[in-house]
Amino acid sequence: MTDRGLAGVGIDELVERIVGGDRLVLARALTMIERGEQTARALLKLVLPHTGRAWTVGVTGPPGAGKSTLLEALITCLRRRERQVGVLSVDPSSPINQGALLGDRLRMGRHYLDEGVFIRSMASRGMVGGLAPMALQSALLLDAAGFNDILIETMGVGQSEIAIARQADAVVLVLMPGAGDSIQLLKCGVMEIPDVIVVNKADHILAKRLLADVRSTLESVQRDQVPAVVQTVASTGDGIEQLATALAEHRDRLEHDGLELRRAQRLREAVVDAAAALVAEHVKASAAGDPEVHELLAAATDRRLDPGAAAARIAARELGRK
Amino acid sequence: MTDRGLAGVGIDELVERIVGGDRLVLARALTMIERGEQTARALLKLVLPHTGRAWTVGVTGPPGAGKSTLLEALITCLRRRERQVGVLSVDPSSPINQGALLGDRLRMGRHYLDEGVFIRSMASRGMVGGLAPMALQSALLLDAAGFNDILIETMGVGQSEIAIARQADAVVLVLMPGAGDSIQLLKCGVMEIPDVIVVNKADHILAKRLLADVRSTLESVQRDQVPAVVQTVASTGDGIEQLATALAEHRDRLEHDGLELRRAQRLREAVVDAAAALVAEHVKASAAGDPEVHELLAAATDRRLDPGAAAARIAARELGRK
Repeated sequence: MTDRGLAGVGIDELVERIVGGDRLVLARALTMIERGEQTARALLKLVLPHTGRAWTVGVTGPPGAGKSTLLEALITCLRRRERQVGVLSVDPSSPINQGALLGDRLRMGRHYLDEGVFIRSMASRGMVGGLAPMALQSALLLDAAGFNDILIETMGVGQSEIAIARQADAVVLVLMPGAGDSIQLLKCGVMEIPDVIVVNKADHILAKRLLADVRSTLESVQRDQVPAVVQTVASTGDGIEQLATALAEHRDRLEHDGLELRRAQRLREAVVDAAAALVAEHVKASAAGDPEVHELLAAATDRRLDPGAAAARIAARELGRK
Repeated sequence: MTDRGLAGVGIDELVERIVGGDRLVLARALTMIERGEQTARALLKLVLPHTGRAWTVGVTGPPGAGKSTLLEALITCLRRRERQVGVLSVDPSSPINQGALLGDRLRMGRHYLDEGVFIRSMASRGMVGGLAPMALQSALLLDAAGFNDILIETMGVGQSEIAIARQADAVVLVLMPGAGDSIQLLKCGVMEIPDVIVVNKADHILAKRLLADVRSTLESVQRDQVPAVVQTVASTGDGIEQLATALAEHRDRLEHDGLELRRAQRLREAVVDAAAALVAEHVKASAAGDPEVHELLAAATDRRLDPGAAAARIAARELGRK
């Protein structure tokens, strides 16, 4: 334990406090996870038996679709239903080791003083193993801490964002009218991810067109369960009750049939992805000190070897060592 | 050669035709790269001596910022300057093996009949090694085919998009006013990537505010060379000449000092990233058939092992085999 305020506190007591709802200890445990501290691993192991009760919801969509405002309204709605709500706000868009997010205090200010709401931002500060496993582990802690609903917000709709959202029990895709690329998104496979699609800013002049596009795209996608489509105006709260109801219906359906299977399948995917990311990081780190890799890179920069061939040889070298 | 129209044509002749400007052969060679065909590798090796003359420009920014319209206007401007323009439009946002992009014919229709413009879309159709190396290899082909400018457009601003844009000689970040998340982007490290920042939709009521945000953010970022900031209205063409001039100035500066160093450094990064991606893919593929991995995944789904620990053990197993 490097944390002064918790110095001398044993790990069993930390777990007890987290499970008992101590927000301060929870916040510090999340920091331990982000920093990849050894204590975090031990802690996770001990909280595991206390997990599995929370309902996780991934919220994704292009920047500017109004996800933050929608989340604020959704939290208000869930609080009225007496749910305790944990929020993880994840931003994988920064490749640089100093991603400074807006402070959690500034975001979703309406709920900052509500004891039933806990909000945490995570950026990709060059974390070991990537953001997706970090988000998964953080969600486990929130689960153990007794939150009924855990909302995992991602900033964009890139591969890393979708990987994070997919880990959840329900995936919400938020779109808004008027952005030409929303329609492009619909055509790019993103439609196969969500359980609920929100057409936000439904009072916008182009909302009907987006709605029609969503519906026609859904008709062309082969899925066992067609996602619910909900229209909202997050800024006024219109449609938020319908969104909460659509989520509750999805939960009821899944709890009735397939929840454990879905959770196990997505967890396996997440673990294998995380393992692959760890191995990839190892390759990047070890490449720097390897003279043969150095020579292959020189051949690529001298145009003696094409970049794809150079990459294939470096990869084969790493795998060949096995 | 599986392609009927080119059956019996030797690889040397393919290279000759590509370098000679044969667009049909170029298009088929790009398809070979996308499909990971063996011929593509041999082809790349032979075109390498013909590369290095083109100027590559990565264009990135959040969905809805008007990148496509901006590119159309920029192409018109570059054509007036008698540059031959190749465009790679890359979309890494689909994690699913059937990403269907809008046809190239539909996009940038204004230039479709212009022989001096070549437009190609690429989606992540589960390509081996990922989109970034594929984009790099495709750009090499366009380079060998004699295009003066190669514009590489990415759809969003996630990690994969930025990795692709970074490979270029110049990086353009396109922002638009009114989307709250543009400002958030500015705060997340994305500002350290571009050589030119475009504030598009500069006639928007909130453009001045975005411009002020961009400038104040730039003041807080430590960089050797402060990026140029250009205001455009892509739909009317306003500011596009200034953008082309800013790009030309960046090119002159870099050609005068540091171009080879920058290219070598970014190419090395790209090759190592591609190698890491290949190894990661191998881990994912081999995990499925490994009984010990199976047991570790079962332990994770049974909550006997936390997901991070399971991932670390699978990674150690892969690396330990070496």
